Amino acid sequence: MKISQRAVEAPASPIRRLIPYAEEAAKRGKKIYYLNIGQPDIPTPPVYFEYAEKYKPSVVAYTHSAGLLELREAFVHYYSKFGIFINPSQIIVTNGGSEAVIFAMSVVADPGDEIIVLEPFYANYAGFAHQLGIKLVPVRTYPEDGYSVPKKEKFLEVIGPKTKAVIFSNPCNPTGSVYDEDQLRIIVDVAIEKDLFIISDEVYREFVFDGYKAISMLTFEEVANRTILVDSVSKRYSACGARIGTFVTKNRELYSAALKFAQARLCPSMTSQYATIGLLTIDDSYIERMRIEYQARRDVVYEELLKVEGAVFKKPHGAFYIAAKLPIDNTENFVKFMLSNFEVDGKTTMVAPLDGFYITPGAGVDEMRVAYVLDCDKLRDAMKILALGIRAYREKI
Amino acid sequence: MKISQRAVEAPASPIRRLIPYAEEAAKRGKKIYYLNIGQPDIPTPPVYFEYAEKYKPSVVAYTHSAGLLELREAFVHYYSKFGIFINPSQIIVTNGGSEAVIFAMSVVADPGDEIIVLEPFYANYAGFAHQLGIKLVPVRTYPEDGYSVPKKEKFLEVIGPKTKAVIFSNPCNPTGSVYDEDQLRIIVDVAIEKDLFIISDEVYREFVFDGYKAISMLTFEEVANRTILVDSVSKRYSACGARIGTFVTKNRELYSAALKFAQARLCPSMTSQYATIGLLTIDDSYIERMRIEYQARRDVVYEELLKVEGAVFKKPHGAFYIAAKLPIDNTENFVKFMLSNFEVDGKTTMVAPLDGFYITPGAGVDEMRVAYVLDCDKLRDAMKILALGIRAYREKI
Repeated sequence: MKISQRAVEAPASPIRRLIPYAEEAAKRGKKIYYLNIGQPDIPTPPVYFEYAEKYKPSVVAYTHSAGLLELREAFVHYYSKFGIFINPSQIIVTNGGSEAVIFAMSVVADPGDEIIVLEPFYANYAGFAHQLGIKLVPVRTYPEDGYSVPKKEKFLEVIGPKTKAVIFSNPCNPTGSVYDEDQLRIIVDVAIEKDLFIISDEVYREFVFDGYKAISMLTFEEVANRTILVDSVSKRYSACGARIGTFVTKNRELYSAALKFAQARLCPSMTSQYATIGLLTIDDSYIERMRIEYQARRDVVYEELLKVEGAVFKKPHGAFYIAAKLPIDNTENFVKFMLSNFEVDGKTTMVAPLDGFYITPGAGVDEMRVAYVLDCDKLRDAMKILALGIRAYREKI
Repeated sequence: MKISQRAVEAPASPIRRLIPYAEEAAKRGKKIYYLNIGQPDIPTPPVYFEYAEKYKPSVVAYTHSAGLLELREAFVHYYSKFGIFINPSQIIVTNGGSEAVIFAMSVVADPGDEIIVLEPFYANYAGFAHQLGIKLVPVRTYPEDGYSVPKKEKFLEVIGPKTKAVIFSNPCNPTGSVYDEDQLRIIVDVAIEKDLFIISDEVYREFVFDGYKAISMLTFEEVANRTILVDSVSKRYSACGARIGTFVTKNRELYSAALKFAQARLCPSMTSQYATIGLLTIDDSYIERMRIEYQARRDVVYEELLKVEGAVFKKPHGAFYIAAKLPIDNTENFVKFMLSNFEVDGKTTMVAPLDGFYITPGAGVDEMRVAYVLDCDKLRDAMKILALGIRAYREKI
């Protein structure tokens, strides 16, 4: 009686593995600035609850497996504002962006097949691929050039007969990079030349600064039929707990295939779906206020990080993350040090080691991700403490 | 650019494939008694909405990946009433029973491995197994003896080196069978002798009639460490749209493994989780009233089906289904006939062909499943129409 190899080898969440150290520190009364997880602090618009309360059918029944039509129509309207023109029969509402990724991987790759991933990447891609028996093959990006999309040759080097697709997030979690049209065109060209599907994770669409724009892969007509858009309302409306995402494709075959998997699991939460219809009524000023807030936070983190001698990074233009190479040997050890052996006025800062966002062995061991999910004052304090901690850690080892 | 084989070969829902015929009939003004799907008509207890409204955190955040502790504690109390003694660290709250099955299959079997399934079975097991690259191997049950668990030899015949587990539902969807202790002991013995895991789907626990009891596999001490209980509040509280289920195991290794997959997908809907805490406060009289209602319905369906000459079935003692072999050549054709070519006073009845609940080719083609999800008066009318339809269909072919 042995558990499956897929279970044994399933990667543990890199974000959660250091939590015991944080819990221990908190127990001892240390105040911790949590910059390690992408859980926004922005209040969820109350319309979420208004809509959850508005619809009280006598029976809380299954919805359509693709999601409530009214919700899909609301999404169609939302997407049209970004030049993404689809109809409700091209959307499947999913249990968060997570399930959209699972569906996308399921319909493009069989057990043993490979999917190219821009590295570092949203760590849970590895868990989903692993669960489905799919191998992720990394194409690496580097802090020196702001983790931008590498040259086409780098893709061609690792694409083989088992390669079925490319997956990436843009704006990028964990790096904060926003890929411009030229960078996206590299992916488009590779996909066409090597006949691959594209899985484009665009959950941070609205989080773009300095005049940058998040260009949706679905606006490239030449790959419309080979693209799956993966999306979520989690970050956009600070509604992570709603667990509502979307799987969007104009490819009818992909759509029908994914719908079979969607039908097997019946539907997402009815209550969350109604609440999300509410979220989608929110006018753009909410989003804009949030965008401005995150840009200000990004500025604080960026400015403070500039003061850390030896840190390698470029100014990121999106998402709510900044990744950087630090002048230390090992970020995981550094995070443990910050939690267990360091404090300034009883406070410390927790960041995420970036190695968990890589699959290339040894990659990212001296890199970190900061999620700027606190207000500017707290962020400034947290970053100053981080800088002091880096100095102390370097002196110690 | 080809979609995956897993997508091509994924089974379409047998329950949904005849919907176009029903839609066409409804459009022509025909009234249809839908006995084809397991969507209860019983009102959901209003406490679902009360609790959904009670918890309005300013941020709709991720919950613990295993589910809200308060909800897991409520489940612990619920299970204790059935002699199932567990703690909150042995429960993972899932997106419906569906996800619990996916987690269970993921942690016991690798791509290419096999899981034994009592056939006919809850059709979506096939979709989940397929998505995970796992082969379901059937052990068949038959209408002649009320679809009871077959002799041990039947299991031993098909268990091989790749067999990792046995999955079944008890009370059984689609047959309505309730396995007694002797029948369950066959599964227990097989699991011990062949060193297999047991995945026990007990979502119809409360739906038992005639003094029968649903015995949980988790009450068999000798297999406690090899058992995964799969459960859901969908039917119990008529809350299918909540999408809240549970994965329960006393095996720490299985639990830790499943938790990794749970962490990758973050959590189930926060709002549904709070609403379900409400459902779990409901006193047993609600369940008892529902049980009595379903028993009365079962009686109506059973009585009316007895009048159909040539139908083969035993009185089922649980769930809200009755399966039977009909004196016809092909149930799918019969269902199409009922929808397209038959009516009594402008009304017809839709049942589910049972072949979609089998994987053995050709099995179940002359069998059907009735879900008694309408009140007794409607059921009586629906079953009379069904009987007349069977007669008409037989005369026609």
